[in-house]
Amino acid sequence: MADSFEIRSQDASGRIGDLQVPRADRTVRTPALLPVVNPHYRTIDPDRFEAFGVEMLITNAYIIYQDEELRAQAKSEGLHEVIGFDGPIMTDSGSFQLAEYGDISVSTEEILSFQTAIGSDIGTPVDIPTHPDADRETVTTDLAETERRLEIAASVETEDMLVTAPVQGGTLPDLREQAGATAAETELDVFPIGAVVPLLNNYRYADVVEQVMAAKRGLGTAAPVHLFGAGHPMTFALAAAMGCDLFDSAAYALFAREGRYLTVRGTKHLEDLQEFPCSCPVCTNHEPSELRDVDEETRTRLLAEHNLHVSMAEIRRIRSAIRDGSLLELVEARAHAHPSLLDGYRTLLEHVEHLETHDRSSKSTFFYLSADSAHRPEVLRHHDRLDRLTVEGSLLLTEGRADDRFATTWRLKPPFGPIPPGLTTTYPLTAEVPEQMDTPGYVAAAEGVTRLVEANPETSVTVAQRQWPDRALAKLPESVTIERLGRNP
Amino acid sequence: MADSFEIRSQDASGRIGDLQVPRADRTVRTPALLPVVNPHYRTIDPDRFEAFGVEMLITNAYIIYQDEELRAQAKSEGLHEVIGFDGPIMTDSGSFQLAEYGDISVSTEEILSFQTAIGSDIGTPVDIPTHPDADRETVTTDLAETERRLEIAASVETEDMLVTAPVQGGTLPDLREQAGATAAETELDVFPIGAVVPLLNNYRYADVVEQVMAAKRGLGTAAPVHLFGAGHPMTFALAAAMGCDLFDSAAYALFAREGRYLTVRGTKHLEDLQEFPCSCPVCTNHEPSELRDVDEETRTRLLAEHNLHVSMAEIRRIRSAIRDGSLLELVEARAHAHPSLLDGYRTLLEHVEHLETHDRSSKSTFFYLSADSAHRPEVLRHHDRLDRLTVEGSLLLTEGRADDRFATTWRLKPPFGPIPPGLTTTYPLTAEVPEQMDTPGYVAAAEGVTRLVEANPETSVTVAQRQWPDRALAKLPESVTIERLGRNP
Repeated sequence: MADSFEIRSQDASGRIGDLQVPRADRTVRTPALLPVVNPHYRTIDPDRFEAFGVEMLITNAYIIYQDEELRAQAKSEGLHEVIGFDGPIMTDSGSFQLAEYGDISVSTEEILSFQTAIGSDIGTPVDIPTHPDADRETVTTDLAETERRLEIAASVETEDMLVTAPVQGGTLPDLREQAGATAAETELDVFPIGAVVPLLNNYRYADVVEQVMAAKRGLGTAAPVHLFGAGHPMTFALAAAMGCDLFDSAAYALFAREGRYLTVRGTKHLEDLQEFPCSCPVCTNHEPSELRDVDEETRTRLLAEHNLHVSMAEIRRIRSAIRDGSLLELVEARAHAHPSLLDGYRTLLEHVEHLETHDRSSKSTFFYLSADSAHRPEVLRHHDRLDRLTVEGSLLLTEGRADDRFATTWRLKPPFGPIPPGLTTTYPLTAEVPEQMDTPGYVAAAEGVTRLVEANPETSVTVAQRQWPDRALAKLPESVTIERLGRNP
Repeated sequence: MADSFEIRSQDASGRIGDLQVPRADRTVRTPALLPVVNPHYRTIDPDRFEAFGVEMLITNAYIIYQDEELRAQAKSEGLHEVIGFDGPIMTDSGSFQLAEYGDISVSTEEILSFQTAIGSDIGTPVDIPTHPDADRETVTTDLAETERRLEIAASVETEDMLVTAPVQGGTLPDLREQAGATAAETELDVFPIGAVVPLLNNYRYADVVEQVMAAKRGLGTAAPVHLFGAGHPMTFALAAAMGCDLFDSAAYALFAREGRYLTVRGTKHLEDLQEFPCSCPVCTNHEPSELRDVDEETRTRLLAEHNLHVSMAEIRRIRSAIRDGSLLELVEARAHAHPSLLDGYRTLLEHVEHLETHDRSSKSTFFYLSADSAHRPEVLRHHDRLDRLTVEGSLLLTEGRADDRFATTWRLKPPFGPIPPGLTTTYPLTAEVPEQMDTPGYVAAAEGVTRLVEANPETSVTVAQRQWPDRALAKLPESVTIERLGRNP
């Protein structure tokens, strides 16, 4: 891959990055959301995008290419003039039309040369978006063709335009991973994960997570990744935590046309709303009944503005969370707002070893937010550390006070388990946890005890706990002496 | 109690209501947030409150009473002129000052007559806010004095001003319940739950829930309840789900003065922010660095505007959720954003029988959002229904297909358990649940099976399940035959 992306800060597998866009002479801060602009009509005028915090947009070069008038205008005046936007513009190639209609009348060479000629800042070859549930043979054949086109793309003269290398592979993780590795080996610049739209549209977030994590394994950490078609703000935090850097949203405008109103917890319909559950300028200054009464164009524009405000605020919230080190807390809050996102989050946590390798070790505060928090990478990392610690003589692990009967006393804190004295004030062991801990939290703590006991087979260990459930106590090694403390601290 | 409150719509113990305020000739829609205005200075000009959606505000009659100039102005021009707000104004009495400084120089008669004279729309007697952790004797003595003052309040001539009857009782639920019952027996109008501020300030939400639920048991459903001092938007949904109708926020302004920035997931500090994680007009139009650079007055005003926008949007979100029947989903999303709110939510679910009696039976869609969802009132209600159902012969409860070997086949769906055929398309059995169900969800389903089996001891019941954990299978009655289906549907 080329070298246009720099990671500034990391949390879980999510990161804040700088994407250098040489043609626009701009640096785009990621994660970034690119509003999709249809060259034929504008729902929100692109020259107003900056007021929403938009740094880059995306449009479709194939639509321009196919329209004689737009094509001539783009060739003479340039893409930025056609769209009416000064900042960086990424262009798609017609792959979406290929997926929808089965055929398009342009080759990768032609469309890349066209994108270069009209001044696109990031161009795209014509890859083959395979339907998610296609069989292995189809996926393999399609993928071979996509990879052939990436080779062509790398050989076309594209001046200083960045060029994308889409990663396909259906819902077969091994092929997605291989496709990621192949794409990363090219000299191309930005790596869209393609053909996940049907999964996103059907709320199949667990499948999305499997495919993105597979593609990321192949691509490696350094590649800037675009999750193509992920335009709903409820999905951004989960996608960002996997290490997706760019998102595009046609949803802000398409949903608006159908009276649909985006929130970070799902979609609502204008017709069902008596009040706007949002603080954006549109929702602060209007009532739903007003919007129902205005002409369709105004209604669509105002709904699109709301949808874009909400989406951009979520992107800022994600970047803030990455800086804080609270991205997984944000993902967890979002996951517990929609059952299918919960599936996505639970699937992400199955990849905890992978997340753990990218996660940074010091953050603000670990929040235990649900039984799912017991499976976070920070818990795993603490358990791995316990494997390497030595304690001699007799050791008390307690939720209460130190006790002179024992050579050493350590605190015991679900979900982590034993807390070595030198670490009580370091992340994540300063965690805020609910007083009403759940069983998975206690079970994780028992796992921590087990790891420490196994690393110190000669040490006599006593666990003094208040109200651990039987299921957690049963997980403790047989050699451990169990004592029960009174309920109140 | 008097009759100024009408409930329009209900969800869990939360409700949308109309509070008639006769002196202002207005009806205030609840849940409502009343910004606190200090008579001495304005952070946001009250004549701009309407643009934020504020319908009523609250100020302190004691502060006006004590200030010679303000007092004279209020007597001659009226309270609304002093404050600069046309809508309903509620007034506090000095109880807060009593709690802070131990003594005030006004009696309940005097302050209620003063509030009446200056034109307050809702007046307050001087109750005794007992410190949360005071012993039973102190709480009992203070409560007797508060109740004596409520008697006085009911006897003072207050014209058509509404008068509040504060409910005290420390952290002793039996006394809170008794205080609620006594308050409800007066002729007074609005029922503030007092002295929870120290609990709220220390994030002791489990204690807040215990005290509010106790007060509500005493007050009954019909009483309009004000949760005094609950000004952080992260707490509104939980409080609303218990049936609190009015909130007041000094936080919007006080926090702003200290550079603190409210969100529904907690508090941030302006100095820590590189970007604003919010879509409100302030956050859309400014960068944190700009706010750090302006003069203190402008900074405080803009932060207060943000804080108020976020707070009012959460109130609209709560009212929308009550209309939808998705209030518990909102509470659950909020609870899974902060560990101490999770404690509050888990405590609320311990009162599931009480919630269940107020909950309405038909809503939009039940979302299973975490292991905690297994304990929601809808699950309990379904289990209670299973007690009353009769099935004869052989019954298959299955996560798969019907089977001719059995006289009857019913679906089996965690967390509910057996789904009678006539109910598959009714709330809550249309629930959206994650594919990766958690153990508490399966255990709840096993409880449903048990209830049905116990109601039909002669029926032979077979459970055909895909991947129930041992802990759930162990909860099934011994008479049940267990079959295992393949993993994929």
